[in-house]
Amino acid sequence: MNELDYKKKITERWFADLRDQICKEYEKIEILKSKKVKKFSKKTWKASGTAKGGGVMSILKDGEVFDKVGVNVSTVYGKFSEEFKKKIPGAEKNPNFWATGISIVAHLKNPKIPAMHFNTRFIVTTKSWFGGGMDMTPSLDDKKQKKFFHDGLKKMCSKHHSSYYSIHKKNCDTYFYLPHRNESRGDGGIFFDYLNNKDWNKDFYYIRDVGITFKNLSSEIFKKKLHLKWNKKDKDIQLLKRGRYIEFNLLYDRGTKFGLNTNGNIEAIFMSLPPIAKWN
Amino acid sequence: MNELDYKKKITERWFADLRDQICKEYEKIEILKSKKVKKFSKKTWKASGTAKGGGVMSILKDGEVFDKVGVNVSTVYGKFSEEFKKKIPGAEKNPNFWATGISIVAHLKNPKIPAMHFNTRFIVTTKSWFGGGMDMTPSLDDKKQKKFFHDGLKKMCSKHHSSYYSIHKKNCDTYFYLPHRNESRGDGGIFFDYLNNKDWNKDFYYIRDVGITFKNLSSEIFKKKLHLKWNKKDKDIQLLKRGRYIEFNLLYDRGTKFGLNTNGNIEAIFMSLPPIAKWN
Repeated sequence: MNELDYKKKITERWFADLRDQICKEYEKIEILKSKKVKKFSKKTWKASGTAKGGGVMSILKDGEVFDKVGVNVSTVYGKFSEEFKKKIPGAEKNPNFWATGISIVAHLKNPKIPAMHFNTRFIVTTKSWFGGGMDMTPSLDDKKQKKFFHDGLKKMCSKHHSSYYSIHKKNCDTYFYLPHRNESRGDGGIFFDYLNNKDWNKDFYYIRDVGITFKNLSSEIFKKKLHLKWNKKDKDIQLLKRGRYIEFNLLYDRGTKFGLNTNGNIEAIFMSLPPIAKWN
Repeated sequence: MNELDYKKKITERWFADLRDQICKEYEKIEILKSKKVKKFSKKTWKASGTAKGGGVMSILKDGEVFDKVGVNVSTVYGKFSEEFKKKIPGAEKNPNFWATGISIVAHLKNPKIPAMHFNTRFIVTTKSWFGGGMDMTPSLDDKKQKKFFHDGLKKMCSKHHSSYYSIHKKNCDTYFYLPHRNESRGDGGIFFDYLNNKDWNKDFYYIRDVGITFKNLSSEIFKKKLHLKWNKKDKDIQLLKRGRYIEFNLLYDRGTKFGLNTNGNIEAIFMSLPPIAKWN
């Protein structure tokens, strides 16, 4: 196995391992409230069209804690289209690509608990890089929670590079923004792309840390508010906030556009959409 | 007043008149079920950015019959952007435009009653034309209702031109389609653009007839099913169907894209979105 193949394998395995860890953790959290065992159900899908490979979608729905949480792990490869290859680093002259990723979106039943989103990926063309991040979308303001989340991210980022937090936070604020509403999607987080420091082990260590930090922060945030009471007014605010989430994902999200333009798996692409939402 | 100004005035007045007729008709239908008077509330908005003019949005929400029905009448004018003018007939060399329109979307509470959509408009650049149409989106199949709707459209179209129905129906089927779902948005209807037969009175007569026919057909369809019983399963099917409606409007609808790209009034652009929707 050559070095690049080894890196691909290691990354793919890490994403599957992280998926298993997070699903187990969320199942435990679900039991804390419902006192019933509720498991993620898995669904395998194959890439269609010109791409090869596929993925596994794990979903837990209609829980007492989780309204809907989806975890998607996939590895796809093939050739980019003539139009698309111009936009991808290292694919201008050679359209071959290989990509593996993990993506998680959690929509909670309790409107006092924020929605959480996380993604990391490893892309290989004639170049290679990591990308990803995480962000939090509360329906009701909670400054303490926002500080806890960002402090956690800052602490983790600082272990890897003195400027990661400030740069990756800014990327996140810029990306998760709805211009037509003049609103941020939520409380932000970190977001990065084209990460390649010519030291794969160092970058991979960051990617692992981003994943573990998501597991720990999301788990702590969920557990803290698990038993908080809420009323119909809180729920309505959450459902309107979810409407904004849907607007962002369908109007602007690059991943959604990429998936739809490449005949991706619809269920996997729309995994991020909340189960129910409102508009004024 | 020159001839063109006269045509603009007449069309604008007709749209306001039609709005009043339809709002009155729907308020009557609401009373048939709720036995309470519920009125449309009106909201005036002004165009922002480079465009001038504005519109009036009439909305009736949370009724016994209507979950949400919005009627938007607007007249805007100004100059198209450098990029946009290339795409608009008659604006390539002269970016001035003037446009008036009426647009209606009705989302019904009873899942056995279809959602109805209607729009007509008159656009003036160095050329001028009418556009518009109507379509019906049931949540539950009803072949008799589909036949009633299309028979009504065919009858109306045939008074104006022998091929209007077949061509305008086909446009509608092509336009209201979700490629990523491989699904039609609903039962179709009629849809047309760039209508100019060099006989303005003839075209205007068609536009009036399209509006009156929408009023009559939607009113008959609503009244017929007003008192039908429905259950939670029917409601869930409706909420999922509404999810598709939102996908279409945010991913593909030209009017939504036009509005967002030209800093249109957000409330007026998103008037078409249902008040609540679900995803699987």
